[in-house]
Amino acid sequence: MKFSINRQAFIKALNDVSRAISSRTTIPILTNIKLDLTDEELILTGSNADISIKITLEASDTTNQLVIDTPGGITLPATFFINIVKHLPAETLTLSVEGLQALITSGSASFKINGQPVSAYPKLPELSESKSLKVSAAQLVEIIAQTKISASTQESRPILTGIHLTLDGNQIKAVTTDSHRLSQRIVTLTGTENTEKTSVIIPAKAFNELQSLLDGQNRVEIKLSANQAVFVFGKTTFYSRLLEGNYPETDRLIPSEATTELQIDAAALSGAIDRASLLSHESRNNVILLTINGGQAQLSGNSQEVGQVNENLTAEKVTGEDLEISFNPDYVRDALRVLQGKTVELKFTTNLRPFIIIPEGETDNKQLQLVTPVRTF
Amino acid sequence: MKFSINRQAFIKALNDVSRAISSRTTIPILTNIKLDLTDEELILTGSNADISIKITLEASDTTNQLVIDTPGGITLPATFFINIVKHLPAETLTLSVEGLQALITSGSASFKINGQPVSAYPKLPELSESKSLKVSAAQLVEIIAQTKISASTQESRPILTGIHLTLDGNQIKAVTTDSHRLSQRIVTLTGTENTEKTSVIIPAKAFNELQSLLDGQNRVEIKLSANQAVFVFGKTTFYSRLLEGNYPETDRLIPSEATTELQIDAAALSGAIDRASLLSHESRNNVILLTINGGQAQLSGNSQEVGQVNENLTAEKVTGEDLEISFNPDYVRDALRVLQGKTVELKFTTNLRPFIIIPEGETDNKQLQLVTPVRTF
Repeated sequence: MKFSINRQAFIKALNDVSRAISSRTTIPILTNIKLDLTDEELILTGSNADISIKITLEASDTTNQLVIDTPGGITLPATFFINIVKHLPAETLTLSVEGLQALITSGSASFKINGQPVSAYPKLPELSESKSLKVSAAQLVEIIAQTKISASTQESRPILTGIHLTLDGNQIKAVTTDSHRLSQRIVTLTGTENTEKTSVIIPAKAFNELQSLLDGQNRVEIKLSANQAVFVFGKTTFYSRLLEGNYPETDRLIPSEATTELQIDAAALSGAIDRASLLSHESRNNVILLTINGGQAQLSGNSQEVGQVNENLTAEKVTGEDLEISFNPDYVRDALRVLQGKTVELKFTTNLRPFIIIPEGETDNKQLQLVTPVRTF
Repeated sequence: MKFSINRQAFIKALNDVSRAISSRTTIPILTNIKLDLTDEELILTGSNADISIKITLEASDTTNQLVIDTPGGITLPATFFINIVKHLPAETLTLSVEGLQALITSGSASFKINGQPVSAYPKLPELSESKSLKVSAAQLVEIIAQTKISASTQESRPILTGIHLTLDGNQIKAVTTDSHRLSQRIVTLTGTENTEKTSVIIPAKAFNELQSLLDGQNRVEIKLSANQAVFVFGKTTFYSRLLEGNYPETDRLIPSEATTELQIDAAALSGAIDRASLLSHESRNNVILLTINGGQAQLSGNSQEVGQVNENLTAEKVTGEDLEISFNPDYVRDALRVLQGKTVELKFTTNLRPFIIIPEGETDNKQLQLVTPVRTF
C-alpha cells in the first residue's frame, strides 16, 4: 500500500471520520482508523460500534492530489495518526505500508508508526432490505436541532435517549421526550416519492454527530433497515444503530386547547429567563415563577439563602385567564434557543398541566416545544 | 450606599478584580467582592490571601457614568454578583444597599442579593517601609513571559514556585528554575533612579495574573517591602505576598563556554520539536534525541510500542564538535515559544551538561533559557 495526498484534504476527511472514534471503547481496534486504498480511491472508516463514518477520497477529485501507487489497507491509532498528519510540514504527505508499519513522510519529517491489519477491523453492517428517502441537509439539520434538546441523557430508560422518527407519505415527524419536556418537528418532504408508514428510534447522540457533518451539504439519502439507519451525502456514509423497543405514544401528551396565551419575542424572553435562572441555579430547587395578572406578565424567583429576582416582561400580547406557574428555566431556555429570532406563543391551561411553546402562527404542532411545570405548593 | 454606573465599565473592572478571587478558599468571605463607595469613587477589592487586586472607578471619569447618591460599603458573593451584572438588560445599573441586602436594578430587571458587611473583610496590607521603582508595562510583561515557564509547579520546594527578582542599580534580573530548566531575563530600566541592591521572590502564579492585567498599560510602579510586592498602574493596585527563604544561587549553573553551537530559526525548530514530541508523548519516557554530525543536525525519537520519528533540521549554522544529546522536548518547546520570531542559538558542551538557548547575538545572558539533558545510557 502506498499513496500520496494533499494534507489539508486528508485532514478534513480524518477530522470528519474521527467523530465516530472514541478512545473509551471496549473494542481496542476501534480506537484505530481504517484506510482502504483501491485503484481509484482512498476510503477512511471510523466506528464506535454505535455509529460508523465512512469517507471516500477519490483520485479523480483534483483537490485531493491523491496519487495511488499500490492499493492495500491498514488500520492506525486514530488520535496519534491524525495528530501527526496535522503537524507535518509540507503540503502533501506520502504514506507507505511495510508489514504492519506505516511510513509517513512529508518534507523533512518522517514517521514510522505501528498499525494493525484491516482483517482485524469489524465489518460495517450491510443493509439488505431497506426503505429509502431523500431530504435536504438543511431540513435534516433543523429536525435534529429542534428535537435533540428533549432527548433524555439518562440510561435508565434507554428508549428516551433516542429521536423517534416516523415517516408517513411525504412527511417526517421527529419527537423526543425525557418525560419532563417534549420536542416535536414535522417537515414535509419536497420532490420525494411517498413512502409507506414506518418508524425508527435513532440515538440522539448519533444525530448530534450527524448534524455536525451536514454543514455545506445538499441532499441526504436516508436508508432504514431493521436495525440500522444509514445517511448518505457527498462522499460520506454515516451509519447509526437503531434503538429497540416501543417509543411511548406522545400525541396524547400535547394539549389541544389553551386558556392563557402569552406572545413574546423569543430573545427578550430568553434574556429574562437567563437572568432569573442565575438565581434559581444558586438555589436548592431550580424553579422560577411566571405570573400573568391583568394582562401583565412577570418572572420571579426567590431563595431564602441567596436573594430574589423580579422582571416585568414586555409581551406583544397577553390573553386569557390569570395564572401563576412554576417551571425549570433551563427547559424553557433550551426551547427558546431553538426558536431564536422569532416571536413565540406560550400556551397554558392550568399550572399543573404541560404548556407549549411554538413559533407565532405555527399550526398542526409542526414546531413544538412542551414543558411540564413544577408543582411548588 | 447607593450609586448607578455604566454596566460595561463596571464589568471590565469586576472581571479584573475577580482574577484575585477564588471559589476554593479556606476564608469564606474571600469568595466575596468588596465595594467601597466614597463621595468621589467606587473602590472594588478582591483577594485570595496570596494576591489582592484593588480597582478604583472615579466619578470624574465620564466613561464610568458613575453617579454617587450615598457613600457606604458592602461585600457580595463575587461570581454570582458578576454574573448578574453581565446579564442585566440596560446600559446602566443602580445598586443600593439596605442592611445587608443589595438591590440591583437595570431596565426591567431587579435583583435582591444577600451580602456581608465590609467590617468582616480582611484589611489589605499596608506598606510601611518600601523600595520603589518604575518600569514600563511592556518590559514587565516580557520579564514575566520569559521566566514564568521555568517556575516549578511542585509545592515540594515552595521557593522554586517563585520568580527571583533582583534589583541592582538600574537593572532588574528575573530568574526561575524548577531544577530541570532555568529562565533568566535581565532588563535595564530607563529614566529611573538607581536603587540599592535588593532581591525578592514573587510567586509565579501572582505574576501570571499580573501579566494579564498589564495589557494596554503604560508605566508600572513597583513597591517592595519585607513581605509584600505592590504594583500600581492605571487605576489598579496589585498586591502579592512574597515567598520567604533563600533562592538558590543560579549564576554558577549557567555554562560560560560551548563546544557545539546550533543556530536555527525558532519557529522551524519549534515545528520539528512539536512533531517529535507527538511520538515521545505516547512513549513511556518523554525524551527526544538531537544528533549533530558533520555539520548536520537531526531530531529523532524511538519507542518500541509506538514507532519512530526522524527529521533533518534546516539550520542556519552548525559549528563545533559532533554531539548526541537527549532532552525533554516540552522544555525546549516552551523556551522556543518565548523566543518565537527570532533566530536562536543553542550552545552545548557535553551531553551530560545543561545547554542554553539564547536569541542570536544576545550577550551577557540577558535573555537565556537553560535545559538540563536527560541521560539515556
